[in-house]
Amino acid sequence: MKTASKNDSAKKNAGYKAAEYVEDGMVLGLGTGSTTHYFIEKVGMKMAEEGIKVQGIPTSFQSLLLAKKWNIPITTLEENDVDLSVDGADEVDGDFNLIKGGGAAHTKEKIVDYAAEKFIVIVDESKVVEKLGTFPVPVEVIPDASRIVIQTLEDMGAECEIRMAQRKDGPVITDNGNFVIDAKFAEIASPQHLEIDLNSIPGVVENGIFSQMVDKVIVGTSDGTKEL
Amino acid sequence: MKTASKNDSAKKNAGYKAAEYVEDGMVLGLGTGSTTHYFIEKVGMKMAEEGIKVQGIPTSFQSLLLAKKWNIPITTLEENDVDLSVDGADEVDGDFNLIKGGGAAHTKEKIVDYAAEKFIVIVDESKVVEKLGTFPVPVEVIPDASRIVIQTLEDMGAECEIRMAQRKDGPVITDNGNFVIDAKFAEIASPQHLEIDLNSIPGVVENGIFSQMVDKVIVGTSDGTKEL
Repeated sequence: MKTASKNDSAKKNAGYKAAEYVEDGMVLGLGTGSTTHYFIEKVGMKMAEEGIKVQGIPTSFQSLLLAKKWNIPITTLEENDVDLSVDGADEVDGDFNLIKGGGAAHTKEKIVDYAAEKFIVIVDESKVVEKLGTFPVPVEVIPDASRIVIQTLEDMGAECEIRMAQRKDGPVITDNGNFVIDAKFAEIASPQHLEIDLNSIPGVVENGIFSQMVDKVIVGTSDGTKEL
Repeated sequence: MKTASKNDSAKKNAGYKAAEYVEDGMVLGLGTGSTTHYFIEKVGMKMAEEGIKVQGIPTSFQSLLLAKKWNIPITTLEENDVDLSVDGADEVDGDFNLIKGGGAAHTKEKIVDYAAEKFIVIVDESKVVEKLGTFPVPVEVIPDASRIVIQTLEDMGAECEIRMAQRKDGPVITDNGNFVIDAKFAEIASPQHLEIDLNSIPGVVENGIFSQMVDKVIVGTSDGTKEL
């Protein structure tokens, strides 16, 4: 499910550090991706070593399988509020604004992360940017609306591509059955306004700008972590 | 597919009147519901009688079947822009703000209606209100997020119910595979702001406030039509 990368130790340091904030009895939001992978792993180890009990709400099928592997009991938003959500990001700026959705899981991630009492973001140094926007903004859309939404995004100044799948013909399909448009804006003047504007386009389910709710950003380095 | 109602003649008058705006070669947005039913019927009759050619983009499976019945060729937003969309409403106020979604089709309706060059709303007199909000606002949500979205809507002052199905156990499922929450607000001070605020809640796919884009409102009466 994962391949080695040169950032692996940084990701591991960030994910393991976030696990220090996990306390007995917590309901955890389990983010998706190669950094959150290490958080879930460490939570599983912590449960076994310290005998604490937690429950997890996965933000994707991938995270569900990882939680299962590490014997973290699964619960749902229907049953429980979220005490702490830990999730990665594709970009994070100094004001704690994020771009997420490289793994096409940003809709469920935003549902869980925004619902959490506390939301910690874990990244390696390569994700920290001065200004958002080198990474295109993932926009989840209802398939029938994709051409019309692209037209609107282009009117807003974005260059757009429907994200194409590998090992499947045609577009990537999200866990919710939709497409993802990757929208590259020349400049993102206000992440807050862009997040709202994108969700106001009919056919858009959710977008990958996270401009709210982040409490802490843990940046993993090759030999430790620091906080933004 | 339809049962008789005392408003049937008013609905028929509104639907038939809107068909007068249909011209040869147009791509039509085909709304959903008991009033649009008559519009689609009249377009079919007009094609047969006058020999004009149009294409239709249905906003629901129900409208697709009706278009098929009346031999209106189907097209998609992927292939064509929309010249004219005609759709019903559950409420319309004097500023042309709408509440839609009684038929749970408001997401595809908004995609098509907002994309149209011209958007005509057809209603009977019972749908015209001074102020929106007697009819609850339908909010389409990703099922997993429904409890969390209800919590947020209640914080915004709404009384909420997940719309339950008939002839199926449990909730209504939309054509997009989601739930509908009917949210009754004590007061809707600004439809424009509410439309944006609702779409900013993670887990909300689309809401039934239409505060943009309406060009004309045709109100059917028992013996004719008038315009708002």
